[in-house]
Amino acid sequence: MSEDNDVLLHRDGPFVTITMNRPRRRNALSRTFLLALTDAFREVGATDARGVILAANGPVFSAGHDFADMAGASHADVRDLLKVCTDLMRTIQSIPQIVVARVHGLATAAGCQLAASCDLAVAAESAGFAAPGGKGGWFCHTPLVAISHNIGRKRAAEMALTGEVFDARTAADWGLINYAVPDEDLDKATRDLLERATQGSPRSKALGKQAMYAQLDRPEQDAYTYAIEVMAASSQTPEAQEGMTAFLEKRHPTWPA
Amino acid sequence: MSEDNDVLLHRDGPFVTITMNRPRRRNALSRTFLLALTDAFREVGATDARGVILAANGPVFSAGHDFADMAGASHADVRDLLKVCTDLMRTIQSIPQIVVARVHGLATAAGCQLAASCDLAVAAESAGFAAPGGKGGWFCHTPLVAISHNIGRKRAAEMALTGEVFDARTAADWGLINYAVPDEDLDKATRDLLERATQGSPRSKALGKQAMYAQLDRPEQDAYTYAIEVMAASSQTPEAQEGMTAFLEKRHPTWPA
Amino acid sequence: MSEDNDVLLHRDGPFVTITMNRPRRRNALSRTFLLALTDAFREVGATDARGVILAANGPVFSAGHDFADMAGASHADVRDLLKVCTDLMRTIQSIPQIVVARVHGLATAAGCQLAASCDLAVAAESAGFAAPGGKGGWFCHTPLVAISHNIGRKRAAEMALTGEVFDARTAADWGLINYAVPDEDLDKATRDLLERATQGSPRSKALGKQAMYAQLDRPEQDAYTYAIEVMAASSQTPEAQEGMTAFLEKRHPTWPA
Repeated sequence: MSEDNDVLLHRDGPFVTITMNRPRRRNALSRTFLLALTDAFREVGATDARGVILAANGPVFSAGHDFADMAGASHADVRDLLKVCTDLMRTIQSIPQIVVARVHGLATAAGCQLAASCDLAVAAESAGFAAPGGKGGWFCHTPLVAISHNIGRKRAAEMALTGEVFDARTAADWGLINYAVPDEDLDKATRDLLERATQGSPRSKALGKQAMYAQLDRPEQDAYTYAIEVMAASSQTPEAQEGMTAFLEKRHPTWPA
Repeated sequence: MSEDNDVLLHRDGPFVTITMNRPRRRNALSRTFLLALTDAFREVGATDARGVILAANGPVFSAGHDFADMAGASHADVRDLLKVCTDLMRTIQSIPQIVVARVHGLATAAGCQLAASCDLAVAAESAGFAAPGGKGGWFCHTPLVAISHNIGRKRAAEMALTGEVFDARTAADWGLINYAVPDEDLDKATRDLLERATQGSPRSKALGKQAMYAQLDRPEQDAYTYAIEVMAASSQTPEAQEGMTAFLEKRHPTWPA
Repeated sequence: MSEDNDVLLHRDGPFVTITMNRPRRRNALSRTFLLALTDAFREVGATDARGVILAANGPVFSAGHDFADMAGASHADVRDLLKVCTDLMRTIQSIPQIVVARVHGLATAAGCQLAASCDLAVAAESAGFAAPGGKGGWFCHTPLVAISHNIGRKRAAEMALTGEVFDARTAADWGLINYAVPDEDLDKATRDLLERATQGSPRSKALGKQAMYAQLDRPEQDAYTYAIEVMAASSQTPEAQEGMTAFLEKRHPTWPA
């Protein structure tokens, strides 16, 4: 599997860990780095891996956009950069694998957005989350999109308006992440959640993930209209039939490769 | 009031308990059973009952769809079954009575959707909730619609992707249900919540429930546009006038029958 | 700064406190009072104040609409009153300043809606929140809009259907408010939150608040489309450039007046 200096890929059985490896830049999301991360997710997305852990080297998960890229950049260049950034978020949600963020240190601005955009997220208790643009001269407009689709409005407003760091326990309490765990348990807890989330048929899981994002945000009746069609269609797959037959025959199912 | 073997109806004063009574089938939601439940809600909906408790006999609240119905069924038959199932969910939300789920044992797949689709829900502490399709060969696409309209995205994703059982305390913490109570208090707590939720004028409560579902999921300004109209119109009802006059005259109101 | 008997304005440095001062009417939101409050927010909105505290005199934050206004009013008059009320809610969200509700006593019906419509909210532990229409002869249709955009569906349904009072700790747990604090700490906690929420450039904060409300409620991809444009455009402001440059030069930023 490919590897460059900034993005490390490590496969361990059915899982791939994508590690952000710009520790001296606090894993700041430069244009080049965003593109490399997107490529890494696309590359893993085309494999038979079942799950992905998004991790980071260095003291910080990710400090968000790299101001060295942005200070002095034109309106058009910033828009392009934000589109590249949003493409990464969409790619994470569109690949067939389940993606769990493994967050330590700080996840700030687009780094917080990155954690929030993974399907699931686990953080060390010492980790923090922030949308700090609001206490500076700009504002975390795009990070707030990911944040406010995961947590309640008053909490999202507090994050975006204060710009301050919220600890992992608070993030878990609000639903921004799934679990805050003692620092020494972070690897195990991330792996455990990924194992739990990748049980069953890979193909049905991949369709499930895709359909989940397609139906979220839809009004309930629209969501049902969509979900009925995808569920009826997927009932005809070998996986669904095998799952039901195995259940009825009280035996373990065998999934198609 | 009518009664057949699979669905029991019991009226006690202003409240009707609809009991799922297929204990040996773990209250699996076969096509016939779904239709019988829908008929039961419609029948109660046409009475002057003020509230409904949805309960279950046997060790399990409901195991969801009956795989005996689904294994080998055609795409068209599964779609039809899911439409019948969704009709039950809509019927619960559209009848004038307030409906509280009384959950014990397990509420899985469409059984979890059923609890989530009631206006309010109380569960025994020993109860569990699951959307297990995702750990098999299919996926709980339609149950996830009801689940994700009640709880945050990361939690809904964890339920749907892991397929595992989440206990009642967690379900209450996430907002999937209103209360998790000691097992021995389940009947009392369910009844208490229904009594609290059915105070006041039945007709205004019925309109309130209907309007609540019509405005949920709408963007805030659209929701206001709708809510202003229904609130202005309902101000002219005898119930609203009596409520205001009684308040101003410091006396108890009397509601029209 | 102007002042009349019912609405008090007090400026203290960068912050203005707008105090509802109809204690004998429990700060009931008559048409005249709603218009006076809206005017007060508009007036403050046109100043260089950075933040607003919405407070109340007397034992009750606000008892909601004034039934003396509503009993016997025509459909058209009630609709007009509700539009005036909704205009106040929109005004709070549309002024450039950050608005924090300081809630003590009871916030009921449109009074609860008022607290929920502020950007942020802090309440005394002894305070309570209610949407009581549902236990009378009417229903809190418009308050439920604000409530259900802040908290989960089952909790919003419980508030609207039972009409009962929920304590401040519960309101904070559900996300209806940001903090419930000991009564004696209410002023300090409100002020602290406002200070935290008004750090940074006033102009970028004002744009951030405006954009936040424009993107909330939008499906994630629509929200991104909007947020990318506003974030790219705002990158060209002197504030954003100063913020980034100061960060890169490791000095404190200076905001344009």
